[in-house]
Amino acid sequence: MDNVNRQWRLMRRPTGLLADGDLVLSESPVPELQDGQALAKVKYLSVDPTMRVWMAMDSYLPAVGIGDVMRAGGLAEVIESRHTLFKKGDKIVGLTGLQEYAVIEGQSKLPFQKVPSIPFVSETVFLGALGMTGLTAYFGMTEIAKPQKGETLVVSAAAGATGSVAGQIGKIHGCRVVGIAGTDEKCSWLTGELGFDAAINYKHPDWKEKLAAATPNGIDIDYENVGGEIMAAVLDRMNLHGRVVVCGFISGYTKEVPEQISLGLLIVKRLKVQGFLILDYGARFTEAAMELGKWKMMGKLKDRQTVVEGLEKAPEAINMLFTGGNIGKLLVKV
Amino acid sequence: MDNVNRQWRLMRRPTGLLADGDLVLSESPVPELQDGQALAKVKYLSVDPTMRVWMAMDSYLPAVGIGDVMRAGGLAEVIESRHTLFKKGDKIVGLTGLQEYAVIEGQSKLPFQKVPSIPFVSETVFLGALGMTGLTAYFGMTEIAKPQKGETLVVSAAAGATGSVAGQIGKIHGCRVVGIAGTDEKCSWLTGELGFDAAINYKHPDWKEKLAAATPNGIDIDYENVGGEIMAAVLDRMNLHGRVVVCGFISGYTKEVPEQISLGLLIVKRLKVQGFLILDYGARFTEAAMELGKWKMMGKLKDRQTVVEGLEKAPEAINMLFTGGNIGKLLVKV
Repeated sequence: MDNVNRQWRLMRRPTGLLADGDLVLSESPVPELQDGQALAKVKYLSVDPTMRVWMAMDSYLPAVGIGDVMRAGGLAEVIESRHTLFKKGDKIVGLTGLQEYAVIEGQSKLPFQKVPSIPFVSETVFLGALGMTGLTAYFGMTEIAKPQKGETLVVSAAAGATGSVAGQIGKIHGCRVVGIAGTDEKCSWLTGELGFDAAINYKHPDWKEKLAAATPNGIDIDYENVGGEIMAAVLDRMNLHGRVVVCGFISGYTKEVPEQISLGLLIVKRLKVQGFLILDYGARFTEAAMELGKWKMMGKLKDRQTVVEGLEKAPEAINMLFTGGNIGKLLVKV
Repeated sequence: MDNVNRQWRLMRRPTGLLADGDLVLSESPVPELQDGQALAKVKYLSVDPTMRVWMAMDSYLPAVGIGDVMRAGGLAEVIESRHTLFKKGDKIVGLTGLQEYAVIEGQSKLPFQKVPSIPFVSETVFLGALGMTGLTAYFGMTEIAKPQKGETLVVSAAAGATGSVAGQIGKIHGCRVVGIAGTDEKCSWLTGELGFDAAINYKHPDWKEKLAAATPNGIDIDYENVGGEIMAAVLDRMNLHGRVVVCGFISGYTKEVPEQISLGLLIVKRLKVQGFLILDYGARFTEAAMELGKWKMMGKLKDRQTVVEGLEKAPEAINMLFTGGNIGKLLVKV
């Protein structure tokens, strides 16, 4: 075992995209295990838009402290254990931090989950479609959107880890599903492999007309991941009594001006706009994982990953989320 | 019968408060009745914030046309009838327009309701607590807010026609109810006569500290009538999973900048923000009126009116809404 743990530490709160020096790669010794602890080697790190929020400010979790190891989800393998629950060789997912080795505490407030071994299913799916991003889509759709057969669902950042699952859940519930994404390749994946009814590349100049053509009966549900101009165009076509699931607003995380929604529109269209967080559904993760797993086995839930090789590329990977570089779940292979 | 119908016509879309010349008082002959029509003399006109929206732009109803009689609700008495439903002497409420005489069409799209005669109850209550503003509070509270016993409800513009009813409905449902209003007199009315648990005059410099002291367990429901800085202070104290009932935002109607709510806050606090309109509940007006009427008879629903005398004062009365001049329902006595 290597005795050095490479760790990305937050040195400065970013403005806009991550700049050199916001995160700094440091080295520290791999810690000696105490009784009750386990040591895990991180294999894959999950790259998520919410990390940009964690760097910038207190939100639903405290901001990452300056000088601290950057918070991140990851898939890791237990390599040494004095822990009662985890043994050597176990694969686990949880908040490992943006580093090579994670210590698992006995009484951790940030619990880790063992990853089951399923034939023909890559373990990294537990960071994506069967992990936090998939669970987010599951609860956003089933608890907030409550899709009804025949309704029109529009998903923004539809080729992302959460959006792609949200749209497929819409299809499973009998909705007409239209995705918005930023490349023709992403759009082809949505309509080809995932079975979306339509996909709109918002970088085409006539995308709003295409959105109108793809939603002839208006829009009942907006699964919102982007905000800004894209959200505005979707809200413009919302039907009366529509629901806006506020999952995220990636176009806003790197901006100074807070992302907002108009109260006048809410009244005129009688919209329900609801924010939610996966954290609130901890007691139902098993249920959701079983549903998602069932859909996966039935071939109704497809996923894709974009893998960036090397822990040293983590900051570039984070920026890719905001420039649209990934299709499906974005991972860093450590 | 006077043969002249004085009518306020919209000549210009206002910016900010109403200015001279936005509405112009014109005279036209009282129309000859056709078969199936009735003629009603307007006795009281309802003065409502939404009128400012109707003047400015298409919203949930088309904007009032330039040169047209201003849209307004009113209480009128039928003075001549060739109508199958209304006879001479009937008191009615509905969209009479801002004028002295209203013609009731046989197939009107804007229906009128007969006003029942109830001992000791002023007929004008059917423009207020038992009229549109009371019904608005009823559906906003029972359908959107869904108050639970022990929750904390904050109502802005709490001494207004809708806010005062919304707060009392909160008390009926066992909430701790805190009102926000703009004068000490209004606040005394809220806590004294209406039984609010606390009332905050937002014109006092330390009002935010007082709001904090009055909501020691945070805020579960914001019944929002104001927007702007007042809404921001309330949202700041919202509990996780709180509900924001977007009834209106009177501070925004006279401003150029659209009133908005932050998406980030929605996620971090998992808020549900919902707009609604009384128009959608037409099929349940009878149910609501019976509930409100029952509460009124039981002394649980109190109301108050501010009456401005004279049709010619209507524009001043409309501006009073935005400068906080009224307590309870604002009426113009024609």
